[in-house]
Amino acid sequence: MRLSRYFLPVLKENPAEAQIVSHRLMLRAGMIKQSSAGIYSWLPLGYKVLRKIEEIVHQEQERVGHIPMLMPTLQSADLWKESGRYDAYGPEMLRIRDRQDRDMLYGPTNEEMITDIFRSHVGSYKDLPLTLYHIQWKFRDEIRPRFGVMRGREFLMKDGYNFDLTKEDALHAYNRHLVSYLRTYERMGLQAIPMRADSGPIGGDDTHEFLVLADTGESEVFYDSEITDLTFGNREIDPSDHDACRAVLDEFTSRYARTDETHDPELFAKVPEERQRTARGIEVGQIFYFGTKYSDAMNAKVQGPDGKQVPVHMGSHGIGVSRLLGAIIEASHDDKGIIWPEGVTPFHAGIVNLKQGDDEADAACEALYNSLKALGLDPLYDDRKGGAGMKFATMDLIGLPWRITVGPRGLKNGVVELTSRRTGESEDLPPEQAVEKIAKIYAGIV
Amino acid sequence: MRLSRYFLPVLKENPAEAQIVSHRLMLRAGMIKQSSAGIYSWLPLGYKVLRKIEEIVHQEQERVGHIPMLMPTLQSADLWKESGRYDAYGPEMLRIRDRQDRDMLYGPTNEEMITDIFRSHVGSYKDLPLTLYHIQWKFRDEIRPRFGVMRGREFLMKDGYNFDLTKEDALHAYNRHLVSYLRTYERMGLQAIPMRADSGPIGGDDTHEFLVLADTGESEVFYDSEITDLTFGNREIDPSDHDACRAVLDEFTSRYARTDETHDPELFAKVPEERQRTARGIEVGQIFYFGTKYSDAMNAKVQGPDGKQVPVHMGSHGIGVSRLLGAIIEASHDDKGIIWPEGVTPFHAGIVNLKQGDDEADAACEALYNSLKALGLDPLYDDRKGGAGMKFATMDLIGLPWRITVGPRGLKNGVVELTSRRTGESEDLPPEQAVEKIAKIYAGIV
Repeated sequence: MRLSRYFLPVLKENPAEAQIVSHRLMLRAGMIKQSSAGIYSWLPLGYKVLRKIEEIVHQEQERVGHIPMLMPTLQSADLWKESGRYDAYGPEMLRIRDRQDRDMLYGPTNEEMITDIFRSHVGSYKDLPLTLYHIQWKFRDEIRPRFGVMRGREFLMKDGYNFDLTKEDALHAYNRHLVSYLRTYERMGLQAIPMRADSGPIGGDDTHEFLVLADTGESEVFYDSEITDLTFGNREIDPSDHDACRAVLDEFTSRYARTDETHDPELFAKVPEERQRTARGIEVGQIFYFGTKYSDAMNAKVQGPDGKQVPVHMGSHGIGVSRLLGAIIEASHDDKGIIWPEGVTPFHAGIVNLKQGDDEADAACEALYNSLKALGLDPLYDDRKGGAGMKFATMDLIGLPWRITVGPRGLKNGVVELTSRRTGESEDLPPEQAVEKIAKIYAGIV
Repeated sequence: MRLSRYFLPVLKENPAEAQIVSHRLMLRAGMIKQSSAGIYSWLPLGYKVLRKIEEIVHQEQERVGHIPMLMPTLQSADLWKESGRYDAYGPEMLRIRDRQDRDMLYGPTNEEMITDIFRSHVGSYKDLPLTLYHIQWKFRDEIRPRFGVMRGREFLMKDGYNFDLTKEDALHAYNRHLVSYLRTYERMGLQAIPMRADSGPIGGDDTHEFLVLADTGESEVFYDSEITDLTFGNREIDPSDHDACRAVLDEFTSRYARTDETHDPELFAKVPEERQRTARGIEVGQIFYFGTKYSDAMNAKVQGPDGKQVPVHMGSHGIGVSRLLGAIIEASHDDKGIIWPEGVTPFHAGIVNLKQGDDEADAACEALYNSLKALGLDPLYDDRKGGAGMKFATMDLIGLPWRITVGPRGLKNGVVELTSRRTGESEDLPPEQAVEKIAKIYAGIV
């Protein structure tokens, strides 16, 4: 993309309404625009990152055999009356009446609807196990929306639902989700720590939240410092292997790690003192096993191997897709702006032309731009007339991990400058080597 | 995907509520499930086609330089009061009151919101031309929702908006949209004819609807039969070339083609009688030029080259993404089920194992499945235990364009059977040649 043809309305001033750095930077980098309280438009740069995150979530869900579908945003109140949650949910549920005076609502979650789909179509244990998921906009009418997309009212969430014959199978589905979530977050450059959590209005006993450590996190967290040494990496785990998934769960949840909701000071005291940590965290996902809570209430049964009708065991599993943009920025920025991890960056590299209009500089930039595109990469070329200061400031603000700077002086020596946004380190390289280096960095990511 | 692990709840019986064939087939093929009047869940097979259509729309929009973004589903009523449409829109607009008693609505279209974004960020003619678009769920509270996704209440639409300095530039944007739409529909296997239309509540004088001919279409259409001979094909049109885009408009709109809304019997009578056609059509898109209607009402101005503030010229351009599934099926089916065009098929080929459990047949199917996947193709392998009749009926119903049938008898002779869903023709081929043939068919599509 050429910046002169793009729509990137960066702001020079810090917007007054933004209290936390991710909100500030998303506004300043022209990623979002508030349309009403807690509701945002995703401007082109923000939308590009949102789509990348969505794509990673899809890929990792499909990798472990979960099946994508899509439920609508608006739901009939009837199903929620059946489960008993219509009255229980409170004022965060946006209730709507349509022109025929039917009670509707903007879905905050989909346990009822997916259970209804399941019971309409599945009758036998032979069709299990089954995990369906979707990525769809949700609405929670927060009394005090704030922190930009971190606590918006209209937000994008991946929610998945497993249906299993036995508790044991459903717990495997739980573990499999944990495995896939660890991989998902790491691909986005995040360390998200599974912590014992509270089940809230979803219900059930087994639940873990995934928290990204950040000073601005809403939750206070307590953990054993050994946990931050764990990485999932490129392990190949067979998603149908119960023991292998269970081993990952054990590895990542055996050390103390809890939010303030479930914190147990006595247990925490048993962690060696030098490893006790208190910090703040941002919740980016949660997994639940809740057994037959909804299948009992809504009569979702299958015929078991013995011919008897039994309620299915279920769980639900969420990733806060739009919220992740905020979380990534909270975890990865500096005074100048955002620093995107390679896995989610809106453009793979920026090209800065220091002397737009100079034939040689223009030609060198065009050549770099075309070489990167020919390799399947997506560069952003700052082809505006304007000073180096302004161009560097824009690139730093929007946080592309790699910048190629092209100017007449370097070109005389046959080189361009390749700069890492994260380290600030630069090196002079012939243009083709700069392209090659960038291609190597993104190999296996793009 | 192996069918035994997929969620494909096909129905044996014709659902009573479905009046038209696309609705019937989408229900029977397990593509959608109604959740409330005019609101559907997209089951895995339906969602897969929906995503493909969405992807084609994105690709063709980006090909001509339009910039993707995303606006929210819920809007504040304030902007609509500013444009004067809040009261004008009538009961099809779903009006909502949030917990703070603010007037909101579920967006049926986005002229107001995009104009607000534009005026907040763009101040100079130097930032023009600009075309922004999004693909987002909309809601129209139809009094009588029917025909499945063809006339649903919650529906997915691509809507794009151009901002230009002059009427001439805006008309070029109009023509450019026409060019890109022709290509978009053809990639989906559709002939969509641009017809002079009525502007309705959007406003403006210049507008064309794109209609797919089908007996079940809602509109009566009148046209010169020569128009159905036109195809866009693989033309390379430079989207910035005013004359080239204009020439396409002229070519595709100079012959008589109108819906009942704009039909002019006197003009139609001038078409040679043997070329006069009356038929029914399904609207799958519409383009508008409406000048400064919204920019005047909402004060969206830029500074022109002479330093003066001028309102921008705008247009809006829509594609009915979810409705397209219905339109494609209406245009492409037979008594046995759907016939997907290759460009949008949910799976590229089906593999039918006539003797599941037979070592040789199972191994041959696995090999075919893996070969197709290795080529980047997406096969559906019917690995269920069950008779040939049931398996063929399922494949015919869900409409995959190519089927490979594997059975012990053929394997003895070293062949499998490759069948075209459209023509019904079959040929016996060694497995590797069947794979090669399928790969060739999809080259340039996948």
